[in-house]
Amino acid sequence: MLKPALLLTALLIAAIPARAQSSNDAVTSFELGNGMDVVVIEDHRAPAVTQMVWYKAGSADEKSGVSGVAHFLEHLMFKGTKETKPGEFSAIVARHGGRENAFTSYDHTAFFQRVPVDQLETVMRLEADRMTNLQLSEKDVLTERDVIIEERNMRVENSPESLFTEQANAAQYLNHPYGRPVIGWQNEMSRLTRQDALDFYRTYYAPNDAVLVVAGDVIPKDVRRLADKYYGVLPANPDLPKRVRPQEPRQMAERRVIFEDPRVGQPYVSRSYLAPERDSGAQKRAAALTILADLLGGGQSSVLTGALQFERKIAVQTGASYNGLMLDDTTFDVYVVPAPGVTLDQAEAALDDVLAAFLQNGVDPAQLARVKLQIKADQIYARDSVFRLAQRYGSALTKGLTIEDVQAWPDILQAVTAEDVMTAARDLFDRKKSVTGILKAPEVTQ
Amino acid sequence: MLKPALLLTALLIAAIPARAQSSNDAVTSFELGNGMDVVVIEDHRAPAVTQMVWYKAGSADEKSGVSGVAHFLEHLMFKGTKETKPGEFSAIVARHGGRENAFTSYDHTAFFQRVPVDQLETVMRLEADRMTNLQLSEKDVLTERDVIIEERNMRVENSPESLFTEQANAAQYLNHPYGRPVIGWQNEMSRLTRQDALDFYRTYYAPNDAVLVVAGDVIPKDVRRLADKYYGVLPANPDLPKRVRPQEPRQMAERRVIFEDPRVGQPYVSRSYLAPERDSGAQKRAAALTILADLLGGGQSSVLTGALQFERKIAVQTGASYNGLMLDDTTFDVYVVPAPGVTLDQAEAALDDVLAAFLQNGVDPAQLARVKLQIKADQIYARDSVFRLAQRYGSALTKGLTIEDVQAWPDILQAVTAEDVMTAARDLFDRKKSVTGILKAPEVTQ
Repeated sequence: MLKPALLLTALLIAAIPARAQSSNDAVTSFELGNGMDVVVIEDHRAPAVTQMVWYKAGSADEKSGVSGVAHFLEHLMFKGTKETKPGEFSAIVARHGGRENAFTSYDHTAFFQRVPVDQLETVMRLEADRMTNLQLSEKDVLTERDVIIEERNMRVENSPESLFTEQANAAQYLNHPYGRPVIGWQNEMSRLTRQDALDFYRTYYAPNDAVLVVAGDVIPKDVRRLADKYYGVLPANPDLPKRVRPQEPRQMAERRVIFEDPRVGQPYVSRSYLAPERDSGAQKRAAALTILADLLGGGQSSVLTGALQFERKIAVQTGASYNGLMLDDTTFDVYVVPAPGVTLDQAEAALDDVLAAFLQNGVDPAQLARVKLQIKADQIYARDSVFRLAQRYGSALTKGLTIEDVQAWPDILQAVTAEDVMTAARDLFDRKKSVTGILKAPEVTQ
Repeated sequence: MLKPALLLTALLIAAIPARAQSSNDAVTSFELGNGMDVVVIEDHRAPAVTQMVWYKAGSADEKSGVSGVAHFLEHLMFKGTKETKPGEFSAIVARHGGRENAFTSYDHTAFFQRVPVDQLETVMRLEADRMTNLQLSEKDVLTERDVIIEERNMRVENSPESLFTEQANAAQYLNHPYGRPVIGWQNEMSRLTRQDALDFYRTYYAPNDAVLVVAGDVIPKDVRRLADKYYGVLPANPDLPKRVRPQEPRQMAERRVIFEDPRVGQPYVSRSYLAPERDSGAQKRAAALTILADLLGGGQSSVLTGALQFERKIAVQTGASYNGLMLDDTTFDVYVVPAPGVTLDQAEAALDDVLAAFLQNGVDPAQLARVKLQIKADQIYARDSVFRLAQRYGSALTKGLTIEDVQAWPDILQAVTAEDVMTAARDLFDRKKSVTGILKAPEVTQ
């Protein structure tokens, strides 16, 4: 499978200008009678199909005090229903050589299966079943709670960098639940109950809060028939809460978070700025920020890399990133890993010099053209993967965007001007909305 | 009234050792059939009485996204019921030469009236009436919302120091609602609705969530009869939520908050540390922290004042404070206002020097004795004010403490040893649980 795909990509890159004109993927969408969104993406290259169910509910939809429950429930969704025993759904997928996975983030929880196309009906029946018929024993819940706590131990507790990121992120948000880690605060995870999980399940797991994406060797008519048969019969939740989270108050004071851990081998300085996200019908500012991140930190010819790694040689690594695919205000992040002999203070000062110079000098048109071309190429790579395409639609639809927004995005990115980037940068680089993070080992005292 | 009180205080100070033995104020307490707590404090010096109703609900009990609603409801409680028109309760109190007030904090909302003793029944009837029969018109709600927004403008928006304190406090708490200002975030206050206020009212304003304190020229038997008649008939809320707020995860990274405002005339540096609060039956650590605050920052002979103002002359003001009367983890705060010509960095370094030296050198026994004597004297001053006594009981009972805890507190304070203080200080001064705040005017650039 791998080689032909790469080959196809190479052909597509050669044909960039032509392909970029038609950004319509083979996408059909409709809504079931109970309010469930369905997206069908046709790709007939192989007799396989991916089913994804995306719930418009993630960790930022949790009530205060039960952080981690969205992710906990994601785990518990594999515990069976009246019809299926614990683990049975997964066993059926595996028996047919399929693959499955599940993900929780701030704004979504999603369940995927990739199976031979003749198994689509089976996985739709099983996924619909667990949308409303989940059965949880107290014992399963307690066992799984140990699993997520262990998952936290492995992913977060064992990593000073992860702990540092959590603490800095909590300082970034004064009010919004994005300040809580998706996996949960350790003190709250250890007290999560079966009832907490069921409350979240009963509130959010319903067809009118879900997006079904079916991608692969299917035609929309067949998907619609199966979707009606299995999902269409499920009752909508009439009490589905409006998706309004506590929003940030004005951020008026820059924050600094200094994390010391003896396990830190490579100290670094990070800076995050509160930043707007992609909004339906209004994606221009987010597009400018996407390009800004690439200009500053995307690869060897970027502004930060050029100035700090090549010219001044004071950094061994630099980066900039922006994730606009969020329901509410997100962050724009930069970091500098200082070269040996360079202090964190020097690295931070150099970072600020580069940002100030960028605001002064503006965008290099050649750099802008390079970044846009790179983005265009990446989008075509992505289009080649039906899985990534499906993920793109599912993710966007759980962030308040529409299919039209997803399809308009490449053109909006290409239309960004140097001036758009500078306007976005000037709004963004406000230290009052920033957190500067310092990760380092404690100084050795004698 | 003023002169005899002062005279009495003078006599009491002379008699400190004897009085301190009997810390039993003339306090009686009982519970009504519906679960309402009643505390009666007898004081027959004047034919006046204070009624206080304390609800065990404050801003930290608000749901996320409606910050300020506890305080908003406090205002709306003056809008009348089926029986009384808007403002009528206040008018009745005023007509009899009485005084009234209301307060909202993190853990409580309280309503006070001080009236001639023959008006006690009237204010009890009216307070009981508005506990369950509040009527809110959409118009009154909108008008009052403008009032609280204006209150925020006056108290917070016009004060760089208040804004700074809000931002630093939000950085102190990673998860607990104490990170939200009691008055509310501006962006959320402007969207508070009648329904938000009624939700809070119906959840928390009920006899089983309230403490009635009656203090003054009354006897318990009469208070009990009236309390039964007016409050005892009100239905308990069977769905009163357990008072469990999201707790702090481990705090692992020190934070710095830098607030710049051109209106700042006097820059300063503050430091807050997360600190345990007074717990029922376990007040010893909080007592040690109370004494630590006095040792460090209480007056002219304190450690910070001595070192930074008198010896090194680098500060014009210093202070330390600790408020243990909270339901959940609180803060211990210190600050230094630098002398002219001293930078904030120098002031902060000097502060840290003093704290490090204190941890090294321990408690000066003469200082400890002085502080304890001062506390004892203050307590006797307080006891002289029936209003302050009533406030003390009402406040403690809304923080999970008992009457026994309040009465044991003076002895627990007096029993604190130098070692207790040092143990508490060593636990407390953990930079990882701290926020350092810098308030200053922006530097003038040329």
